[in-house]
Amino acid sequence: MSSIFGEIFRVATFGESHGGAVGVVVDGCPPRLPLAESDIQVELDRRRPGQSDLVTPRREADACAIVSGVFRGQTLGTPICVMVGNTDARPDAYREMETAYRPSHADFTYQAKYGIRNWEGGGRSSARETIGRVAGGAIARKALCALHPSLEVVAFVESLHDLNASVDPLTVTREAVERHPTRCPDVAAAGQMAERIKAVRKAGDSVGGIIGCVVRGLPAGWGEPVFDKLDADLAKAVMSIPATKGVTFGSGFEGTRLFGSEHNDAFVVKDGRVGTETNRSGGIQGGISNGEPILLRVAFKPTATLLRAQKTVSVDVKPVELAARGRHDPCVLPRAVPIVEAMIWLVLCDHALRQRAQDALPRG
Amino acid sequence: MSSIFGEIFRVATFGESHGGAVGVVVDGCPPRLPLAESDIQVELDRRRPGQSDLVTPRREADACAIVSGVFRGQTLGTPICVMVGNTDARPDAYREMETAYRPSHADFTYQAKYGIRNWEGGGRSSARETIGRVAGGAIARKALCALHPSLEVVAFVESLHDLNASVDPLTVTREAVERHPTRCPDVAAAGQMAERIKAVRKAGDSVGGIIGCVVRGLPAGWGEPVFDKLDADLAKAVMSIPATKGVTFGSGFEGTRLFGSEHNDAFVVKDGRVGTETNRSGGIQGGISNGEPILLRVAFKPTATLLRAQKTVSVDVKPVELAARGRHDPCVLPRAVPIVEAMIWLVLCDHALRQRAQDALPRG
Amino acid sequence: MSSIFGEIFRVATFGESHGGAVGVVVDGCPPRLPLAESDIQVELDRRRPGQSDLVTPRREADACAIVSGVFRGQTLGTPICVMVGNTDARPDAYREMETAYRPSHADFTYQAKYGIRNWEGGGRSSARETIGRVAGGAIARKALCALHPSLEVVAFVESLHDLNASVDPLTVTREAVERHPTRCPDVAAAGQMAERIKAVRKAGDSVGGIIGCVVRGLPAGWGEPVFDKLDADLAKAVMSIPATKGVTFGSGFEGTRLFGSEHNDAFVVKDGRVGTETNRSGGIQGGISNGEPILLRVAFKPTATLLRAQKTVSVDVKPVELAARGRHDPCVLPRAVPIVEAMIWLVLCDHALRQRAQDALPRG
Amino acid sequence: MSSIFGEIFRVATFGESHGGAVGVVVDGCPPRLPLAESDIQVELDRRRPGQSDLVTPRREADACAIVSGVFRGQTLGTPICVMVGNTDARPDAYREMETAYRPSHADFTYQAKYGIRNWEGGGRSSARETIGRVAGGAIARKALCALHPSLEVVAFVESLHDLNASVDPLTVTREAVERHPTRCPDVAAAGQMAERIKAVRKAGDSVGGIIGCVVRGLPAGWGEPVFDKLDADLAKAVMSIPATKGVTFGSGFEGTRLFGSEHNDAFVVKDGRVGTETNRSGGIQGGISNGEPILLRVAFKPTATLLRAQKTVSVDVKPVELAARGRHDPCVLPRAVPIVEAMIWLVLCDHALRQRAQDALPRG
Repeated sequence: MSSIFGEIFRVATFGESHGGAVGVVVDGCPPRLPLAESDIQVELDRRRPGQSDLVTPRREADACAIVSGVFRGQTLGTPICVMVGNTDARPDAYREMETAYRPSHADFTYQAKYGIRNWEGGGRSSARETIGRVAGGAIARKALCALHPSLEVVAFVESLHDLNASVDPLTVTREAVERHPTRCPDVAAAGQMAERIKAVRKAGDSVGGIIGCVVRGLPAGWGEPVFDKLDADLAKAVMSIPATKGVTFGSGFEGTRLFGSEHNDAFVVKDGRVGTETNRSGGIQGGISNGEPILLRVAFKPTATLLRAQKTVSVDVKPVELAARGRHDPCVLPRAVPIVEAMIWLVLCDHALRQRAQDALPRG
Repeated sequence: MSSIFGEIFRVATFGESHGGAVGVVVDGCPPRLPLAESDIQVELDRRRPGQSDLVTPRREADACAIVSGVFRGQTLGTPICVMVGNTDARPDAYREMETAYRPSHADFTYQAKYGIRNWEGGGRSSARETIGRVAGGAIARKALCALHPSLEVVAFVESLHDLNASVDPLTVTREAVERHPTRCPDVAAAGQMAERIKAVRKAGDSVGGIIGCVVRGLPAGWGEPVFDKLDADLAKAVMSIPATKGVTFGSGFEGTRLFGSEHNDAFVVKDGRVGTETNRSGGIQGGISNGEPILLRVAFKPTATLLRAQKTVSVDVKPVELAARGRHDPCVLPRAVPIVEAMIWLVLCDHALRQRAQDALPRG
Repeated sequence: MSSIFGEIFRVATFGESHGGAVGVVVDGCPPRLPLAESDIQVELDRRRPGQSDLVTPRREADACAIVSGVFRGQTLGTPICVMVGNTDARPDAYREMETAYRPSHADFTYQAKYGIRNWEGGGRSSARETIGRVAGGAIARKALCALHPSLEVVAFVESLHDLNASVDPLTVTREAVERHPTRCPDVAAAGQMAERIKAVRKAGDSVGGIIGCVVRGLPAGWGEPVFDKLDADLAKAVMSIPATKGVTFGSGFEGTRLFGSEHNDAFVVKDGRVGTETNRSGGIQGGISNGEPILLRVAFKPTATLLRAQKTVSVDVKPVELAARGRHDPCVLPRAVPIVEAMIWLVLCDHALRQRAQDALPRG
Repeated sequence: MSSIFGEIFRVATFGESHGGAVGVVVDGCPPRLPLAESDIQVELDRRRPGQSDLVTPRREADACAIVSGVFRGQTLGTPICVMVGNTDARPDAYREMETAYRPSHADFTYQAKYGIRNWEGGGRSSARETIGRVAGGAIARKALCALHPSLEVVAFVESLHDLNASVDPLTVTREAVERHPTRCPDVAAAGQMAERIKAVRKAGDSVGGIIGCVVRGLPAGWGEPVFDKLDADLAKAVMSIPATKGVTFGSGFEGTRLFGSEHNDAFVVKDGRVGTETNRSGGIQGGISNGEPILLRVAFKPTATLLRAQKTVSVDVKPVELAARGRHDPCVLPRAVPIVEAMIWLVLCDHALRQRAQDALPRG
């Protein structure tokens, strides 16, 4: 059950880093949606290794194939299986992980949980698993934009290590994000970030950072009260991405320092409908969208796999040193931007269909 | 579907603030577990209104009744329904909310979503809904401790407005937390916090803060890779609590400022088993517990409902002013502590049973 | 998880025969639906004991209370909890079941599964559990008929022991069914059936029979391919009712004796739309409704609990004799009619909302 | 959601008859289970077309590939994706179905539901979809037999058209079933059945029949009360197989003609444990296995697709005649035997793990 996500628009992902292939089955997609491999490929290309000199050099075209669920360019309403082969697998480069656990990686916990693990490249805990998410997210985006053409999800690198960008979430565009290989839309900061990534790679070290994200153009009324709150489901979605350590909405932790009278977003009339003057709520109140932009921030820790030697323990529980070989990202953020967006599209599409299902009776 | 939580150990909550009753149905509880209403009541008492002069004066004993699923003091394995009546409902005190939306509350979003809402006390968005969670969490705790007696979940108030407590999560005890009505175990800070709460109440204002939480004594191997990571499920669980704005695990957002070589938790041999030297991971790696304490922090915004006048919009979309009457918490943190714990118990119990289910084959 | 049913329109039932109460939580009901206790009570009255001299004399008014989810006569979209108290519980009358297992009842299997059981009246395996289903079904009916006013579900007693009724499913009405306490709309057969029931009661014995059911007025296109076929979900729904031993759709087992050329339902043009000349498919093809009436039949075994002595085994695994006291139905069929209908309403409402959710894009 | 089945041991199938491939993702399989493609292939070979002169001549080797979830011959506990390519697709042979609906097939209902359909070979409603079920069932079988080595599921052709076999479910073996291409273990009846199938093929017609099935060697205590009864879940499982029209357990519809005193299965002591003297219950009481063999029967209608001309309606709602070309089974029963078994293995494996999960506390 661990690899199935969503209630109505559902994805089931599969695949290890060095197995035959990775992919996703999307169940519950609306029928009659125009869909081509190119709709998916454009997002996979943003996620793929080797896209710039800032990311892992593993050479994977990550070319996707739609195996089912599409007929003459339109979705059938039946499960859509999308597959991507693993072509540049080099299990030998990971042989040291057969006998020792990488610090702060999932090697040990997988072994503890399953009593077995695929140590060739991290198996299911590899970032390669996120291909299925990005493919599913691309389909969710296509479906949702067919219903709500003005809906936009834009994620971007907001900080990297101690370098902070200046980004206005209300105006930032996907184009601005894609302009630089860091996916930081603040050009000056982006340049510094690129230097920092190159420096830590050289040092056999790694860095993390914060990804900001905005959802614009969604209507009020999405999200469920109680457990499946829109922010709760979004929190789960982004916290399920490897290397995340935290998520906030709107005012986040800083908002805890304000009085209620300072923090509350006054309702105002905007174009004849209810809006808010400020947006410390981050677009969600009581777990339900209020029509204002959703604002969230996600913390990514520095990559755990380092090329420099680290103290660790072997599978037979003895102290050892481990320096990774293999091909690794010194910083996951540039490639994590489309993954964050994909997870958000999956949640939004599911909630849009859930709201559509329950809101069945005519409104007065 | 919005009010059902969990995969194997499942809770379904129900009830509005001012309807007949609130409660929970727990499905999937192990049979033959000794269970009495007092096991549940002790947790409800920590959550209930009127427990101190720092919280809402609404007078509710919140006395629970087990309606099903228990026979002669033991669980039957069938659904356990726990109910709590609403006795001190005063719908008249909320009449102003019939015609105007409280800023940063769920009044508007419920109306947008459902085209109807119970404006008497907030209906389903009221904190009163959390009674079902706390009752369910108490049962999860009882079940899980029967399997893992050394397991502990301790939440505490870590900061309130700009007041910070000093708390060591490795040693903090439930007793220390319960010693002061703020549920801050740092006595000096607790006193200041109590003063702050009283001051904002007097001013018709409110404050928020941060709840820290530690889980100690859990084994390695709980949590699922990919979507149902232990931290992802915990994040959803706590972010589904009203008024939360963010959650972090281990190093959180601060950890993004470190190099990987500074951030990684070196594995070391502890008592013959694998442990970590530091715990920036917060006890979870790759979504799976590593046997170290789980550390998380949750941000709660200041209470939205204020007794002072606020600018807002009426249901007929006109600018108005609104000052709440009714009975409200100037700060939700003292009562949120047992709610955070309850949600964590629910997640842990579900994941413990999931791991038990899948790990069916004998280990070498 | 065993007591939760449905994907979007979901019910969670709870309660033992002799515990405090039985009931249901309905999650996912459309908001703004007029709903009163009388909408539910009318169905509960058809199910309740003591309604005629053909059924168990246990005296239960089965008066229901809506505890949540309804505000001023309309559903809120939040969980609807409906409760019914157990008022005429007489645990002493079941004391012999504490020490011996009733043949063909669930006493032994519950003990084997759970290692504990509530022997006072059968606990969760009692027909009393079906109150929650009937209440949930009444709400599903109300919701679905608000969307599809011409939709009808009519179940009826088709045979009882070796007595067969003659009923035309295309024209049978609820009124005709309710005219006689047997719920057999063939008056002549109904009289004989009533005599048979009285005779077996006198003899301390029991009888079973077959319930037929028709769904009229539903559109084509409900039901999902593959696992959640409409007939598969209906089969599960009715086979989850106590005492059922089989279910068929359309031509059922008899249809296996025909050639394909005899069995196929020719498509014809009816009022400008596609219909079928015959209906051996029973209204479902490939798991999806085709717009023709759904026809199904459900086999109910004779009641297991007998007042005459039977050979059995004690809880300490010794041969013993057991004659039930307590109050039991000599034939479950008259009371099972509304239960069959309720389960079908639950499935239909869920599938209607599922189809509404997925069929989101405009049709050419 | 329509293509996902199970709660803990879950399968998600995908693929159309003439798309790129068909397959399954199995989530929740226990780790450390030895698993090879040959374990799956042996079951696919029993299902595949062209295996004898009684079935469709479509030439598909149906060679499976395990794409993920297995490492060096053992399951990882992560999703197992199994794929089978469509190699002998001939869409042209189905062109007549583009414009007219086959009677009693799913062509019309898919069009009604989705507003689009893959008319090349039936798309998702093709029996080819069952490859994913059989592959998943083979994995479930392997997992479950590792836990319960004596567990056996044996399905067989019990009747075909008006030809009845004589089969003792207590002793029938898989070997006896596999001995004849009809999969009827009564050799004399099998010969007649083979002749009948050849005769109807020649006549451009088709026949149906009944598959019997027995589960032997399972413990008491599997199955959940209320909705997820073992018989209810088995009923759904087999009724989700294409062409099924009914299912019965134990005494089925015939049992409705008996008195309770004739029908009840007396409990007796067998080898020191509780058993039953007769087995009209079919091994399940109150939805839970009682340790006796599970007995079920499934009705399959005659194949809908006929090579002779039939009256039907075109997609533009005009009366037309349709005679299929393409390659079709004149009788689905021989190939349905492994499909019935696969669905039963899926249900049993899921329920075994569910029972394992909930029955967590030590027994007295």
